Amino acid sequence: MGPGESARPEENEMAFAMGKAVAQQGWIVLTGGRSFGIMESAMKGAKEANGLTIGVLPTDTTADSSDNADIRIVTGMGSGRNIINVLSSHILVVIGMAAGTASEVALALKENKKVILLRQDEITIRFFKNMGTYKVQLANTVEEAIAIIKDYVKATPGKTRRAASSAEAEG
Amino acid sequence: MGPGESARPEENEMAFAMGKAVAQQGWIVLTGGRSFGIMESAMKGAKEANGLTIGVLPTDTTADSSDNADIRIVTGMGSGRNIINVLSSHILVVIGMAAGTASEVALALKENKKVILLRQDEITIRFFKNMGTYKVQLANTVEEAIAIIKDYVKATPGKTRRAASSAEAEG
Amino acid sequence: MGPGESARPEENEMAFAMGKAVAQQGWIVLTGGRSFGIMESAMKGAKEANGLTIGVLPTDTTADSSDNADIRIVTGMGSGRNIINVLSSHILVVIGMAAGTASEVALALKENKKVILLRQDEITIRFFKNMGTYKVQLANTVEEAIAIIKDYVKATPGKTRRAASSAEAEG
Amino acid sequence: MGPGESARPEENEMAFAMGKAVAQQGWIVLTGGRSFGIMESAMKGAKEANGLTIGVLPTDTTADSSDNADIRIVTGMGSGRNIINVLSSHILVVIGMAAGTASEVALALKENKKVILLRQDEITIRFFKNMGTYKVQLANTVEEAIAIIKDYVKATPGKTRRAASSAEAEG
Repeated sequence: MGPGESARPEENEMAFAMGKAVAQQGWIVLTGGRSFGIMESAMKGAKEANGLTIGVLPTDTTADSSDNADIRIVTGMGSGRNIINVLSSHILVVIGMAAGTASEVALALKENKKVILLRQDEITIRFFKNMGTYKVQLANTVEEAIAIIKDYVKATPGKTRRAASSAEAEG
Repeated sequence: MGPGESARPEENEMAFAMGKAVAQQGWIVLTGGRSFGIMESAMKGAKEANGLTIGVLPTDTTADSSDNADIRIVTGMGSGRNIINVLSSHILVVIGMAAGTASEVALALKENKKVILLRQDEITIRFFKNMGTYKVQLANTVEEAIAIIKDYVKATPGKTRRAASSAEAEG
Repeated sequence: MGPGESARPEENEMAFAMGKAVAQQGWIVLTGGRSFGIMESAMKGAKEANGLTIGVLPTDTTADSSDNADIRIVTGMGSGRNIINVLSSHILVVIGMAAGTASEVALALKENKKVILLRQDEITIRFFKNMGTYKVQLANTVEEAIAIIKDYVKATPGKTRRAASSAEAEG
Repeated sequence: MGPGESARPEENEMAFAMGKAVAQQGWIVLTGGRSFGIMESAMKGAKEANGLTIGVLPTDTTADSSDNADIRIVTGMGSGRNIINVLSSHILVVIGMAAGTASEVALALKENKKVILLRQDEITIRFFKNMGTYKVQLANTVEEAIAIIKDYVKATPGKTRRAASSAEAEG
């Protein structure tokens, strides 16, 4: 997860590296499916490592989909689709921050999903930690985030048989 | 908006006073419709002033609806209905904070809705101010919140012909 | 329920009469909220009898709402909102037929809602009767439909304390 | 698409054969994801031919998912997810009939999707033909259905680059 058009260059680079690392583990990358920002970068990274990518689109056609989304789920529900991004993911990795992204993190905590905040600022960390300390984990590098996901996969073997890590992005 | 079961007594009191004050202005109170927390308190306050209340329920029946919800919109969409709460409101008044509440504030900022943070802590204020300074307003009392809404109604006469202020609550 | 732009003049007249008769009973008219077809006609009829009307809009703003919708629920979910129309209604009254209308009747039968087919053709009646004979009732006039709803309200007093009959319309 | 628990044995057999044939063409099978009826049969057939399957679940967890669904989209929206099944598919193949199935066919016609009615009865055919003759096509065998899809793929090369045929099922 992370901003769309407002994503900063260094955030897009990190999302690319994260998507690639997730795909190298054989996990699926699920994003909001659009052709810009963290969504696009994470899926592009995953495709470079021949990973499988899923885009859950806010629109009612695939016209604005990223070319890097292999599977395109068309919801026609605008930001209403954010709950589907969250419920369909095993773990959320959050890069950068914007309103849509914040709604996905909050919905994830509401639905008891694990969230990895990747290099987030102190305000963001404290805000979400207040809502569910044990569900929020912090990482400063892609490697740290991958290590956390590996631990999670090991701890929940049945649940993550086809482990689908998630690097989502608001649309 | 505000927590359901985790709402604190003083937050419920404030929600009751807010709901009553909104109804006294002739505005509609829209909440998540459930029978506890900020939702219930705000609608109870509104009914004491003979206001009209709308509950947008997460469930697929009205079985768990608050008795204080006059109009019951049944979505069957769980927290997916939070986007409907936001889109159907003119202004969001936020009392207390929890994951579902945070998702509604974030979605409101994403959809360019005005948000009033009523007596929120500094972390919450700074977190959401970072996402859209001009859309977020602060109030410490019900009276201040009502004054902000009045200014908004005056500034957008066509839009708020049937001004529906919103004191929502997560479900 | 019934067609939007493709509604025929005699169907719009019947929807107007139905909306008016429902409002005269003190019941609420819920429709898809748009400014044309059966939706508009039913709400216009209800307003002539000073009834309360609810429009569940497919759009993400109220820009295209009928002026006759008192309460405007904004979903931003396109035809995804049809399930909300169905779940939020006690009884569906169906005038005219089109694809969106058919989806609402089918969803209503799936959700065990009562459906009144008002002056429908034989194919339509036989198609839906095959899916749940006891839930589908036939009426040829507004008076017959009102009589069926009265029986339903009498039989389910708790459920329909604030009986909300529904004359919906696709958007 | 087709009934869940109410599917007849010969319909399940046909769904199995259809899913297998679709997978043999390299197309994706998308269903409602549950572990019974047409959904289960179609995905089981697809997996026998090593195809890729997507299940769009009505539930808010994967607990009731079919083991034959490779990709599990979790919506938590009940029958509200039917619109996502429709919008995410290129073509709908309909085997058997029930209320949920009917809602998907109706939504597909509303959204201008192509629909293949596979060995349906005369009432069903006439009902849906009335709503959009050119969008509804009839087939009596799996081979005929595959031939229709091939023509569609040939006629819309860009749109179906990663042709995702759909054998959905109500949940």
